[in-house]
Amino acid sequence: MSVGCKMFGFVINRKCSATGARLGVLSTPHGVFETPMFMPVGTQATVKTLIPEELYEIGTGIILANSYHLYLRPGTEIIHMAGGLHRFMNYRRGILTDSGGYQVFSLAPLRRITDDGVYFNSHIDGSRHFLNPEKVISIQEDLGADIIMCFDECSPYPCKYEEAREAVSRTTKWAERCLQAHRREDQALFGIVQGNVYEDLRIESAASLVSLGFDGYAIGGLSVGEPKEDMYRIIEVMNTVLPEDKPRYLMGVGAPEDLVEGVKRGVDMFDCVLPTRLARHGTAYTSRGKLVIRNAEYRDDFRPLDEECGCYVCHNYTRAYLRHLFKAEEILALRLLTYHNIYFLIKLMENIRSAIQEDRLLVFCERFLTRYSEPSGN
Amino acid sequence: MSVGCKMFGFVINRKCSATGARLGVLSTPHGVFETPMFMPVGTQATVKTLIPEELYEIGTGIILANSYHLYLRPGTEIIHMAGGLHRFMNYRRGILTDSGGYQVFSLAPLRRITDDGVYFNSHIDGSRHFLNPEKVISIQEDLGADIIMCFDECSPYPCKYEEAREAVSRTTKWAERCLQAHRREDQALFGIVQGNVYEDLRIESAASLVSLGFDGYAIGGLSVGEPKEDMYRIIEVMNTVLPEDKPRYLMGVGAPEDLVEGVKRGVDMFDCVLPTRLARHGTAYTSRGKLVIRNAEYRDDFRPLDEECGCYVCHNYTRAYLRHLFKAEEILALRLLTYHNIYFLIKLMENIRSAIQEDRLLVFCERFLTRYSEPSGN
Repeated sequence: MSVGCKMFGFVINRKCSATGARLGVLSTPHGVFETPMFMPVGTQATVKTLIPEELYEIGTGIILANSYHLYLRPGTEIIHMAGGLHRFMNYRRGILTDSGGYQVFSLAPLRRITDDGVYFNSHIDGSRHFLNPEKVISIQEDLGADIIMCFDECSPYPCKYEEAREAVSRTTKWAERCLQAHRREDQALFGIVQGNVYEDLRIESAASLVSLGFDGYAIGGLSVGEPKEDMYRIIEVMNTVLPEDKPRYLMGVGAPEDLVEGVKRGVDMFDCVLPTRLARHGTAYTSRGKLVIRNAEYRDDFRPLDEECGCYVCHNYTRAYLRHLFKAEEILALRLLTYHNIYFLIKLMENIRSAIQEDRLLVFCERFLTRYSEPSGN
Repeated sequence: MSVGCKMFGFVINRKCSATGARLGVLSTPHGVFETPMFMPVGTQATVKTLIPEELYEIGTGIILANSYHLYLRPGTEIIHMAGGLHRFMNYRRGILTDSGGYQVFSLAPLRRITDDGVYFNSHIDGSRHFLNPEKVISIQEDLGADIIMCFDECSPYPCKYEEAREAVSRTTKWAERCLQAHRREDQALFGIVQGNVYEDLRIESAASLVSLGFDGYAIGGLSVGEPKEDMYRIIEVMNTVLPEDKPRYLMGVGAPEDLVEGVKRGVDMFDCVLPTRLARHGTAYTSRGKLVIRNAEYRDDFRPLDEECGCYVCHNYTRAYLRHLFKAEEILALRLLTYHNIYFLIKLMENIRSAIQEDRLLVFCERFLTRYSEPSGN
């Protein structure tokens, strides 16, 4: 039974005087990282299009990989034989693996949930599989990430109260089994709070997990279609019930405005596929909002994507060139936009940390959001 | 009228005592490069998936871009406005632009050839275009490569003698017009020898071009489907008729065995899409022949692609990981295989140059080819 990861630590160095924001340091076997942080997603053991050296150059600390995907392909045993996920994908800094709960409920067809676990078909080849808390912990121990997650049931939006309550109840029981099953002392185990948009369920879920005792707490089941006000409201409630001295991780959230709002409500960690996915669709973040590179207006625009950005892409390439690459369906377009978008979010978190450090977070957030939402700023 | 490029030079420092191989140095406004050399292809102003810094790291000198493609997309004027191709694509070393002759004859539908030039439809949007020698030189002057090529008519294989003769005749007349039209003194202009597999036509074509006087001579219209023996035979003939003191460029040839055979027959420069195209199809060059990464045998093969290779990919990734990326349709697979394949050819040329320098080329070639053609060496 897990008694808390000895090689894992979290210290809060400063709190914002005006909001719930916290400035912290997260210690893992693969490095020490400042919070609040954004974790790029490397679903299939690669942050799409990039190499680890580029992620280091950007300033990435922890990345996220998906147990569900890696279990199905290439298979957990391959990664275990390779010496774990860090060695397999050549990433030397921190890795967090998602438990697969969210994927099983969002991707896999023909699933059947029992109190023991979930039967489902692979979305790749239709093969039949079964996952339960013990299996999910075993998979994550084989993968060997620094931070691993409990197997949870993520309810959809919208969702009736009764269903959401059942999902919370199951998530709590599964969390206890995950805690019991977890053996590796070099991995931190996080519990995942569920409860949909219902405050009392969220509070109940958090209280149960806290009484079990985890290395950190994730807020799951948000950013699944609910209005932003509901998301912000639930995060605010979490800020009042989660223990202050443990890291808080808002799962699957990563739009720039949500990072800002999450930090103000006490969130320390974020992950999201948005920066990589938007890049593949030709959209870049800029300090003046999103820029759709295929637009004809950029045909002879020889400015960088974002004139205020210091990244490799903005130093070396113009909008006209990137538009050309995108129109010509060149892979380099996706690679350069991905690099820029991840840089944008990592740099945003750096700026947020500086603002907390200097106790000027509200001013920073207001200025950032005003400029980011300016219409046609590009 | 061009009087030979003043900023361009070619010096032969050593000749092989047993073959036609030459060790030379090519000077351009964007650097000095050793020959024999392999030039990776960046058709649409990008060597697919890679950034210039990676090409420098690999040791690439000159790359090739295609006037035909860039004229159609993004359009010559955009690249001219950007300050030329070097600045547009952020490549600081040498660039050679192909004239578009080959592309017009291989890609464009509904083409109509006259003595003045070629009418054709864009393979992208069907729009109607006309290219002639003057236009092609003007396009290449706007693009601003270090080495530009004459507009030529590339006959197909197989091709009747009469047709091949007509193509030679037209290519010669067009070469003279290109020479007349060329103004920029910082660009070298190469003539292109045609003549299909007919030795007398090849000799006639070469003699005509040589009497006009170019900065270098390309051997065009090979590797278009003819037997390898025909290709080698024609290159051998060229070795006897082209001037010794000018660089010789074998267009579109780049299989490892052909690089070796070409160098032995006096070729100084090569280009080919093979290393990048093979990479995108999941095939890697290795010192023991080609390796098809999707094959099931690599599922748990934790060796590098090529145990003798010193490239970034072979230092950091296993066959098992690369196979996983390829099977999972991750772009990083294409990027890493492209990097490795280009490295393999650039390194092969480095080794060839060392072998010429130390007058042991035949021994090197025999050893290389023996090991490269070993069945199932991987």
